[in-house]
Amino acid sequence: MKVGFIGLGHMGSGMARNLIKAGHNLVVYNRTRSRAEAFRSAGAVVAESPGEAAVGVEALITMLSDDRAVEDSVLGPGRALESLPAGSVHAGMSTVSAALSRRLEAAHRDKQQYYVAAPVFGRPDAAAAAKLFIVAAGPSQQIERCQPLFDVLGQKTFLVDEKPPAANVVKLTGNFLITTAIESLAEAYALVSKAGTSSLFAAPIYRNYAGIIANHQFEPAGFKLPLGLKDNRLVLALAEEAAVPMPMASLIHDRFLAAMAQNLSEADWSAIARISFKEAGIEKAA
Amino acid sequence: MKVGFIGLGHMGSGMARNLIKAGHNLVVYNRTRSRAEAFRSAGAVVAESPGEAAVGVEALITMLSDDRAVEDSVLGPGRALESLPAGSVHAGMSTVSAALSRRLEAAHRDKQQYYVAAPVFGRPDAAAAAKLFIVAAGPSQQIERCQPLFDVLGQKTFLVDEKPPAANVVKLTGNFLITTAIESLAEAYALVSKAGTSSLFAAPIYRNYAGIIANHQFEPAGFKLPLGLKDNRLVLALAEEAAVPMPMASLIHDRFLAAMAQNLSEADWSAIARISFKEAGIEKAA
Amino acid sequence: MKVGFIGLGHMGSGMARNLIKAGHNLVVYNRTRSRAEAFRSAGAVVAESPGEAAVGVEALITMLSDDRAVEDSVLGPGRALESLPAGSVHAGMSTVSAALSRRLEAAHRDKQQYYVAAPVFGRPDAAAAAKLFIVAAGPSQQIERCQPLFDVLGQKTFLVDEKPPAANVVKLTGNFLITTAIESLAEAYALVSKAGTSSLFAAPIYRNYAGIIANHQFEPAGFKLPLGLKDNRLVLALAEEAAVPMPMASLIHDRFLAAMAQNLSEADWSAIARISFKEAGIEKAA
Amino acid sequence: MKVGFIGLGHMGSGMARNLIKAGHNLVVYNRTRSRAEAFRSAGAVVAESPGEAAVGVEALITMLSDDRAVEDSVLGPGRALESLPAGSVHAGMSTVSAALSRRLEAAHRDKQQYYVAAPVFGRPDAAAAAKLFIVAAGPSQQIERCQPLFDVLGQKTFLVDEKPPAANVVKLTGNFLITTAIESLAEAYALVSKAGTSSLFAAPIYRNYAGIIANHQFEPAGFKLPLGLKDNRLVLALAEEAAVPMPMASLIHDRFLAAMAQNLSEADWSAIARISFKEAGIEKAA
Repeated sequence: MKVGFIGLGHMGSGMARNLIKAGHNLVVYNRTRSRAEAFRSAGAVVAESPGEAAVGVEALITMLSDDRAVEDSVLGPGRALESLPAGSVHAGMSTVSAALSRRLEAAHRDKQQYYVAAPVFGRPDAAAAAKLFIVAAGPSQQIERCQPLFDVLGQKTFLVDEKPPAANVVKLTGNFLITTAIESLAEAYALVSKAGTSSLFAAPIYRNYAGIIANHQFEPAGFKLPLGLKDNRLVLALAEEAAVPMPMASLIHDRFLAAMAQNLSEADWSAIARISFKEAGIEKAA
Repeated sequence: MKVGFIGLGHMGSGMARNLIKAGHNLVVYNRTRSRAEAFRSAGAVVAESPGEAAVGVEALITMLSDDRAVEDSVLGPGRALESLPAGSVHAGMSTVSAALSRRLEAAHRDKQQYYVAAPVFGRPDAAAAAKLFIVAAGPSQQIERCQPLFDVLGQKTFLVDEKPPAANVVKLTGNFLITTAIESLAEAYALVSKAGTSSLFAAPIYRNYAGIIANHQFEPAGFKLPLGLKDNRLVLALAEEAAVPMPMASLIHDRFLAAMAQNLSEADWSAIARISFKEAGIEKAA
Repeated sequence: MKVGFIGLGHMGSGMARNLIKAGHNLVVYNRTRSRAEAFRSAGAVVAESPGEAAVGVEALITMLSDDRAVEDSVLGPGRALESLPAGSVHAGMSTVSAALSRRLEAAHRDKQQYYVAAPVFGRPDAAAAAKLFIVAAGPSQQIERCQPLFDVLGQKTFLVDEKPPAANVVKLTGNFLITTAIESLAEAYALVSKAGTSSLFAAPIYRNYAGIIANHQFEPAGFKLPLGLKDNRLVLALAEEAAVPMPMASLIHDRFLAAMAQNLSEADWSAIARISFKEAGIEKAA
Repeated sequence: MKVGFIGLGHMGSGMARNLIKAGHNLVVYNRTRSRAEAFRSAGAVVAESPGEAAVGVEALITMLSDDRAVEDSVLGPGRALESLPAGSVHAGMSTVSAALSRRLEAAHRDKQQYYVAAPVFGRPDAAAAAKLFIVAAGPSQQIERCQPLFDVLGQKTFLVDEKPPAANVVKLTGNFLITTAIESLAEAYALVSKAGTSSLFAAPIYRNYAGIIANHQFEPAGFKLPLGLKDNRLVLALAEEAAVPMPMASLIHDRFLAAMAQNLSEADWSAIARISFKEAGIEKAA
């Protein structure tokens, strides 16, 4: 399939490579041009602009860091929306707001294009290994059409709704649940380590983050802390729109701010645990 | 093995039955006498007092609701501590404070008895089905000695430390993690249901509590709310002793109090979710 | 002085009347035209547009409900910025973001106009009675120039900085302190009333809000709850920008959301107390 | 009046001196004997035991650090309860739990003695300067009888109820309100100082704590942090008993624990502000 692919960051680069390996014809675009050049030798065409990446493709995938980056690539003059052929489908795989998903759905409909929201769960290593979990929402025929691409990118696709924003709600809520697990593990770890035992963290539950926390290994980042702050902000915005008080999300928000103030912006988002450790007077790994 | 068993409540009754079925000779005691009588036909001896339940046994198991109930049964004149034979072992399986575990360890040592803390994870149905997870701490020889009993009661025993209170710390921390999962699921459910989709809760993760929450089925209680409040209080006490701020545990504490003020004391502890629902203006199941 | 005055709501109407009474020549504008008409008989000129209200004036005062309303009136084609004479001063008295204050300062500078931020403390009755407290920041000569107007509008002007956004920071922080006082009083009231005494609230400290809370008199609103939510949002935005965790502000945010979900949008912002009451199972005033 | 006085700490020593100066005959007792000796030259009789301090007095005043210290001095064999004459009155001026106040009221009634709870607001300098605010509850005749003593000790006495525990509820709630003011000021200060202005703290409102916070002057302590933690614990216990969720009190609790973990136990209780500062990355006073 001829596929436009915008966004070759930590996640997108592994995903694009997997699509190329599977035989799809990719036109790639990345704002920092040098990252895109590396894909030429793998067989991709390198576009000069986001608009050019959408010319003549059957499907367009965007995998960018936030709402603004997606808006800049898709909406506005000279962007992908203008050059994407009628009848084509845009699979938005970035973690963005439900509000942007609604806007994109309407904008594509006006151009007789289709929009599917398909954000993913998984870190860069999962993206590279094609082990992502994909949460897809949109017209079912369009999701079916994207399914061969999703099969190359992830290990499982969850269909959640006919309306694209639902996938963003699910993704954001999922990230919220991960952050609360991180925070509760951090508090739990601080407690057991000061109360004299840390064997709980040998338990198989929550293996990944419990291990990171127990070993204070917050670098290198699998998912950078400012991105976690951003997703939390999207959760809080959604909660405000729906008038749903979420005290745990608020608590996580303040943890992220404290972590930013401690210059942890290059660390993994699980480094919010450092705030619990500092408050408990735990300075080093046991 | 000749075993004394004190506490035939929702958890203890299933456990005692399993021990009898496996061929152990039980002397049972329960404060409300009628519950004990029912075990006579199954082959147990019914003791008149906690002290009598400990006479001549190799192992004593206590499965009671809180610190005070354990103190009342074991410590003090005429209680189990006085009649338990030297060389015998007391396996304390109740969820109690680490501080009480320390006191019991010392008290038994003074009498040349042994103490193992072995609190469990699992609801009454798991107790009845011998599917409990047992967290054991104490002298390893004594845990080995109790292992045949634990094998009858649970599906797995985790050894955590030579010092009994460590098992209580692990159990309390485990309950803390469960309550934070409940609270975060409740907030997440409130969000997705008001933001227009609830498919997240079809996901296989966190199946049990997510199902209870999504269906608003907080009764009948698997674990009553006031017991959850009690365990949370023990976590907070431990945290205060260790000078570990635990904002999530504090948040859960306030949820429990709100639930008590809404007369939810007969509901399952997961009914703290009702507070999130009320705050979000969600009155009924979708 | 010839003064343009935009925004004749609960606050602005009393303020405009006081300026007219003091002999100033007012050109007034209000989006809902009927509210403006009422000022014609008092001697004001009624403008057809925000732009017209700024023509030929020495000072322009804006007293609007939020950032968007100020942007709509001042910035953009045909708005006040275009018609305000060079050398004139705009006193922005609305409670808006520090970010908007920065933008306004720059926009006016480009037009050789001056900008003073002068948000106020006080409810509509204080506005009508000329008892406002005014927090002013900007070039000191320009504040001096506005002083005769401020003297008519308020009982005291606090000068905080040469840079306008500082006044907005002070105003927003002040509102934050008021909301935390309301919340802590609400919790305190819930405690004392359930613990059997309510005499604390006869104390002279915190008289106003303590009285409102003790009597559950949240209507009519002095300051509507959604405006409180808005100001809290501005505080949180400022805190995020500065990387300052503010758990109390987050707590207040969730109280506001809960109040919105309970349909309290017409009540006074102190009605967040109702959430504390509901959670504590207090349904009616004692 | 012949007065027994137990507890010559930071608060009690100033109070006892004022009573002596006013011409009352004092019998003083302090656990650390040397502190009591200093009062001999001032004209006081030094008792060998708390019991001896109550022999033949008309009024007994206790001013101790916590529930346990009061229990140790008044209840139990050889303590003040046994030697206080029938018809005499005990004015308990310590900050203790409402539960202890209930117990003391009953115990004194059994001995035909009277009990008045009369906790105070004010720091050691206010105690020395006879500027305390006294919150008194108990039988009105007994409060009248103590009034000449209260007039010597404080600047004003508030009568709150016929039942002694009410005064403790008021005192604890008052301390709760002070801690929330401290915490909100700390967050506010962190915000304004990072957002570029600190003039708010020149405002006359909340002068004392705002000044301490703005100058980071948490030592010497007026009221030591562990005492603040203790009072907060009493508030939370009262709230749990009454089923009143108090999220702000919980937040303060965690601040106190964090401060304890940062070795701030010798600092003033307002040093919980340091936690806000640390979290915001503010290390030194501006």
